[in-house]
Parts: sequence; structure tokens; C-alpha cells
Amino acid sequence: MENSPKAIRCKAAVCRGNGEPLLIEDVVVAPPKAFEVRIKIICTSLCHSDLTFWRGQAFSQAFPRIFGHEAYGVVESVGEGVEEVAPGDAVVPTFLSNCGECRNCLSEKNNICTTVPFRVQPGMPRDGTLPITDAEGQPVGNFLGVSSFSEYTVVDIAQVAKVDVAIPPEKACLLSCGVSTGVGAAWKVAAVEEGSTVAIFGLGAVGLAVAEGSRRRGAAKIIGVDLNPEKFEIGKKFGLTDFVNPTEIGEKSLDEIIKEMTNGGADYCFECIGLASLMKDAFYSSRMGAGKTIILGVEMHGEPVSIESTRLLEGRCIMGSLFGGIKAKSDIPTLAKQYLNEELRLDGFITHEVGFKDINKAFDLLVQGKSIRCIIWMDQ
Amino acid sequence: MENSPKAIRCKAAVCRGNGEPLLIEDVVVAPPKAFEVRIKIICTSLCHSDLTFWRGQAFSQAFPRIFGHEAYGVVESVGEGVEEVAPGDAVVPTFLSNCGECRNCLSEKNNICTTVPFRVQPGMPRDGTLPITDAEGQPVGNFLGVSSFSEYTVVDIAQVAKVDVAIPPEKACLLSCGVSTGVGAAWKVAAVEEGSTVAIFGLGAVGLAVAEGSRRRGAAKIIGVDLNPEKFEIGKKFGLTDFVNPTEIGEKSLDEIIKEMTNGGADYCFECIGLASLMKDAFYSSRMGAGKTIILGVEMHGEPVSIESTRLLEGRCIMGSLFGGIKAKSDIPTLAKQYLNEELRLDGFITHEVGFKDINKAFDLLVQGKSIRCIIWMDQ
Ligand SMILES: NC(=O)c1ccc[n+]([C@@H]2O[C@H](COP(=O)([O-])OP(=O)(O)OC[C@H]3O[C@@H](n4cnc5c(N)ncnc54)[C@H](O)[C@@H]3O)[C@@H](O)[C@H]2O)c1
Ligand SMILES: NC(=O)c1ccc[n+]([C@@H]2O[C@H](COP(=O)([O-])OP(=O)(O)OC[C@H]3O[C@@H](n4cnc5c(N)ncnc54)[C@H](O)[C@@H]3O)[C@@H](O)[C@H]2O)c1
Ligand SMILES: [Zn+2]
Ligand SMILES: [Zn+2]
Ligand SMILES: [Zn+2]
Ligand SMILES: [Zn+2]
Repeated sequence: MENSPKAIRCKAAVCRGNGEPLLIEDVVVAPPKAFEVRIKIICTSLCHSDLTFWRGQAFSQAFPRIFGHEAYGVVESVGEGVEEVAPGDAVVPTFLSNCGECRNCLSEKNNICTTVPFRVQPGMPRDGTLPITDAEGQPVGNFLGVSSFSEYTVVDIAQVAKVDVAIPPEKACLLSCGVSTGVGAAWKVAAVEEGSTVAIFGLGAVGLAVAEGSRRRGAAKIIGVDLNPEKFEIGKKFGLTDFVNPTEIGEKSLDEIIKEMTNGGADYCFECIGLASLMKDAFYSSRMGAGKTIILGVEMHGEPVSIESTRLLEGRCIMGSLFGGIKAKSDIPTLAKQYLNEELRLDGFITHEVGFKDINKAFDLLVQGKSIRCIIWMDQ
Repeated sequence: MENSPKAIRCKAAVCRGNGEPLLIEDVVVAPPKAFEVRIKIICTSLCHSDLTFWRGQAFSQAFPRIFGHEAYGVVESVGEGVEEVAPGDAVVPTFLSNCGECRNCLSEKNNICTTVPFRVQPGMPRDGTLPITDAEGQPVGNFLGVSSFSEYTVVDIAQVAKVDVAIPPEKACLLSCGVSTGVGAAWKVAAVEEGSTVAIFGLGAVGLAVAEGSRRRGAAKIIGVDLNPEKFEIGKKFGLTDFVNPTEIGEKSLDEIIKEMTNGGADYCFECIGLASLMKDAFYSSRMGAGKTIILGVEMHGEPVSIESTRLLEGRCIMGSLFGGIKAKSDIPTLAKQYLNEELRLDGFITHEVGFKDINKAFDLLVQGKSIRCIIWMDQ
């Protein structure tokens, strides 16, 4: 084919070892193969899942690797057979695929696409290939099929959602992972009921988005649990009504406190930190009879969750979710529309913005708990 | 009051120490107080939960104690304010209460009554009193508010369901705990869907009743897991389609086998044994995306369940239930009617029958895995 896309030479932020600062390097991004889309990233942001894999404590790592999975961009070229998007389209890449055709994609009940499986290994989801190579021609590891810390990247068409150009890039970027996960968990996984009580463990973007989702569904009490009291101030605008700092509860256990505040236990508990001990606390804070605990955090140290089965027998339920039950193709455009209609609040999530060359600042800010989301602009 | 009921002297099977044979002793059963009903037990049966507390490995014990919580009887007298039943009514006592008025009783979502709380301590649920005393006048511990291994017993009105006299006593007795729990778990907790796959760990009365419930809801494949292959033969009449003996799977793990048999994992897994390791196996055998695991077994050794949270993130859910979501007052009469209409199969559950004086045989049979349910007739 005459017009077939060529490899692109551009800059990417490459990580060459566990917890090491990223290096802005020249890379070569291969043209999109069948089912693939090459995207010019406009902006990207840092999610705690990037941190967890960057630190690499719990997961076997492969370096060099290009992290980043929350982003917004414009389609640059498409591979064979891709008709859903065309060059110039505004898109949000997502770490979870949505082929639209497999049993799970067709089911109302869940969002775990099996055609293009979710994988943490550093290769493209369909064939394990690595579309980006470094200046020496060595392949660079991919992250979650996205690797958005690059001026250009290649993403499977099942992991791309088209969005209305009316939504500002940085707001669309939020919908790419953390915020959608939190809002979706309250809406699609827990299906929070009006008048109910909610306890959220961890008030990063994910936890605050759970608050926003719970607020919109009419929860009567939304308790935030975090070590950092500043998160409560930010959380108020997303509907948080109460705050618990686990370091300030004295002799009592966290679940005792939550049970006192909710007359026996919260209807819905969400773990948005990534620590097994907090997953257990969340579960034990849930109400006897029909309390639901939803795990969203990615356990940082690979620790299992250990719970007494008698607490299950009393009618409690513990479940988890990737991407908060969100189906990228249909739900992300819906959330974008809700933002444009001023039904969904996105403003408070962005606390910092930096240029691409300062990407390591975004890491520092999240590690120190100073940022919720820091937008990284590729052209600055 | 002139007609107020008097204490009754009768026989009861008293347990005086962990795992010791029961002794048929003379006891005195107090008259029913307010909210209480005194029942003449017609027949009773042995559930694995009796065994677990009789052995007393996991739970702090208090002896002497009168076990038994699966039974059928006739109301002998009622306490102040009891209007729902009258002397002569056929009733099934239940270990879980159903006041009909608390938030949980009014909710469609769960059956954990909070007015008359479920307790494993040896006292009546409302006030902790002990209505039965021994020949020396010493109080004898109560079990789950029922203590049916006695010719007469006192039960809270919230733990009594009136049943149609048309149902034979031994069939009604089955509905008192194990069978209702299993059928209810498939029907009300899991809400098993037509065409789905089910894996049942443990084929006692509870597990076989899960099969019966799943069969009635149209499950396409119902796999039973048990160390005892005889259970499979019995299970076929309740809809079991496949059988796995964990001792005959060679190198593979139990969850690998179930995943192979179900094309990736069962839609619904039920633990009906009471071992944390099998609870974990059940959970790991469930399908990515929306697999549900329902814990019914009472952990025999008090071991916690330990699971990888990444398996939760993939959309799996683990929950548990007391009494399979059954609300005694409304659901037991419904199940009785379904039996009378030949929709619900109860015949295969009763494998043995003994007279009250031979109650220890019922223990031997269940310990040895020879019986499903052994009916103990009080007048023999
Ligand atoms: N399930 C999914 O699909 C999905 C999607 C996105 C993120 N995640 C995971 O969700 C979690 C949250 O992500 P984020 O980007 O919001 O993270 P974040 O770093 O912005 O927020 C984490 C919050 O937890 C608080 N925290 C840390 N330790 C705590 C403790 N011991 N007690 C109480 N609070 C504590 C921090 O102060 C912080 O406010 C991470 O584990 C991330 O990997 C999962
Ligand atoms: N949740 C509730 O409300 C409720 C109600 C009734 C019973 N229970 C509990 O349910 C469980 C089952 O009760 P039941 O009366 O049906 O018991 P049971 O003794 O009749 O049946 C248990 C079955 O498990 C099998 N088994 C034992 N160890 C096994 C292993 N390692 N692998 C595979 N199979 C194994 C036995 O062979 C037997 O067939 C018990 O734990 C009981 O306490 C709970
Ligand atoms: Zn993320
Ligand atoms: Zn799919
Ligand atoms: Zn029982
Ligand atoms: Zn009640």
C-alpha cells in the first residue's frame, strides 16, 4: 500500500529500572498492525497503578518499559481492518479492552473482555509484540497495552474509546482510568442505593471518584478514610460527609469506628489504596446482612486478603473490579457527556499540571501524596 | 393466669463434654415466657453444624448443652403475646429468626434478622436465659435457640414457621435447616441462571440441596466435588451432572479441573463442607468476570479464608449466607408447598431413621459419611 504508515521517531519517558527516574529518550514507534491504532498523545496522567509497577515490589518486572495508561490523544493512523476510528479522531485509550463481541462484553454483568485479555506482562494484548524500540533498536516493554508516556503509542482498537471533541483533553484524560474506575464502581459494580451509607478507604482519584459516583446515586453518608486530612477538604466537593484518619482513632479499630458511624456497618465499602490489611478493614466495616465490599486497589506487596468466613456467613460480600465495571466503548462517551451536562464533577481531580520533560515531578507529587491527578502535557 | 403452662418433665439428649456421646436424661422444660413457644418435638435430624459444635474445635463451648436445630413439632403452649401460632399447630423451628419487622426482615436483599440476633452462645436469643434444667436443677446450655434433641423445647416465636399439616413430619424436618439452606442459596443468594454452570463442594444435605435448587433454576452443568463417590449416585436425582473426587485428580489442582470442565470457571461455586482450603478452591474455580462463590460451610477449625485480591479484581465475588437467604416465615411454607406439588424433591435426603434412644447412631452415621440426613423419631 502506498499510504501505509511509516515508523515514527519521537520522544518517550523510558523507565530502565525499578523505581528509577524516567529518562526522556528517542524511540521509534512502529506503524499500527491489524487491529491497532497509533495515537498522538496530547496529555497523560499518572495513576497509582503506574507507581505500583514502577516500584515493582509485587509484580515481576521487565525493563526498559514505558509506563502510562491514563491519556487522551488523537488518532494518527490505523492498522488494517480498523474502521471504528480514523486519523484525527479524539480518543481515550484504556487499560481494559472492550471488543464488544465476547460473552463478557455482551453481558450486562461484567466488563472483563476475553478476546483481548488484560495482561500485566510487557507485550501487546493480542500477540505479545512490542511496538516501540529505543535508539539502539532494542524493544521497550509496553504497559497494559497503552504506554502513554510517549509522544506516540500503539494501542489495540479494543482499548480505544472515541470521545466528543467538546470535552477538554485533560478532562477526557481523567476518564481513561482512575476516575472512571471510581465512578463506575459506585454506579455499575456496587449500584449504590439512595439513602445508603458508604465508606471509602483511600481518597486518591479512585476513592474520590467513588465519592462522586456515590453522591450522584444519592448516598446519605459518605465516609472517607485516609492518612492525609487534606484529602477530606478536596473530597467535600465530591460528596464526602465524614472523615476518619486511622492514626487518630486511639484504641478502637477502624471497623469499630465505621460501625459506630453507620449504625452497625456501611452498606458499601470501597478499598482504593491497595493494601490487604485495609481490604480486610473495609470488609469488616460492612454491614451484616447485605454489606458489600468492593476492592479496587491493586495490592502493592502481593499480600493475600485473609478474612473470617463467619463474617461472610452473616451475609457480607466481597468483590472486586477492574475499571469499575466500565465498558470503554459505551461508558466513557456517556461519562464525557455527563461531564459536559454538568452532572459529573471532574474539576477537583486535577491538582497539578507539568510539561512532559518534568514527568518525574508527577511521580514525586503522587508518591508524596500531594497530587490527586497531575496532568502531563506532551507538547510542553 | 389460671391456664398458664407449667414446667414439663421429659427426656432430652444432653451433651456433657466435647465429642462425648449424648446421654438421655430427665430434664425440666420451663413454660414459655413472652415471645416464646413451647414445642413438642415429633422428629429431629442431625446437621453438620451440630457436629461442629459438638466437637467444639473452633468455637468456645459450654457444657452441658442440648444440641439439635433441625426439627418438626407441634406447639404445646405459647407465652404472653404470642398470637401467630396456637397449641396444636404444626411448626418447624429454625436457627435463624425472622421477626418480620426489622430493616433486614423487611428488605428483599437479606435474611439476617436483627431483632432476635443469631447467636452461638448457649442462651435464648432475646435474653440469654436457659429454659431447660437437668435433674439436679442445673441449667443446660441451649443451642442456636432451638435445642431440639429434647422431647419438649422452648423456641422464640421469631424462630418458628407454621407449616401445612399435609407435609409429612420427616419432610418438614428437612426444611428446618440443611435442605432449605442449600435450595435457598441457589434460589435467593446466587439466583442461579438458566444454562449456567455450577460447582458444589461437599455433597451432604446442604450441597445436594444446592444441586436441587440449581436443577430447578435450569443450570446446564452441576458438578459435585466430594471425597465420597457414593454421594454422586445420590446426587444424580437432584440434578448433578458431573463428579470430581479431589483424591483422583493427579497433579492438577481442583480449581484447574473445574476450570477445564466449565470452559474457564463455574458461574456459581458453593462451599458446603466447612474448610477454609475448600472455600479458597471454590473461589479460584469461579469464572473471571462475574463468577460468584457462596460460602455455606461453617469452618470447622476457625481458619480464615485467604485469597489473592487480584482474583477479586478480575470480577469474582465471594459471599456467604446463613440459611441460604431463607426467611423462615414466608419461605418455609413456600418450600413445603413446592414439595407437595412435586416441584421440590426431598425424598433422597433421608437415608436413615432411628429412635431417640439411638441418637448417638445418628452421630456415628454422619461422622462416617454414611448418612445424608438421619431422622430421629422422638417417640421410638
Ligand atoms: N481496579 C482498577 O481498575 C484500578 C484503576 C485505577 C487504580 N487502581 C488502584 O486503586 C488504588 C488507588 O489509586 P489512586 O490513583 O487513587 O491512588 P492515590 O495514590 O492517588 O491515592 C491513594 C490514597 O490512599 C491513601 N492511603 C495510603 N495508605 C493508606 C492507609 N494505610 N490508610 C488510609 N489511607 C491510605 C493515600 O493518602 C492516598 O490519598 C491503587 O491501588 C491503584 O493501583 C485500580
Ligand atoms: N450456612 C448455613 O446456614 C448452614 C446450614 C446448614 C449447614 N451448614 C454447614 O454446611 C456444611 C455442610 O453441612 P451438611 O450437613 O451438608 O454436612 P455433611 O457432613 O452431610 O456433608 C459434608 C460433605 O462434605 C464432604 N467432604 C468432607 N471433606 C471434604 C473434602 N476435603 N473435600 C471434598 N468433600 C469433603 C463429605 O464427604 C460430605 O459428603 C457444614 O459446614 C455445616 O455446618 C451451614
Ligand atoms: Zn490506572
Ligand atoms: Zn470482549
Ligand atoms: Zn444446620
Ligand atoms: Zn427481623
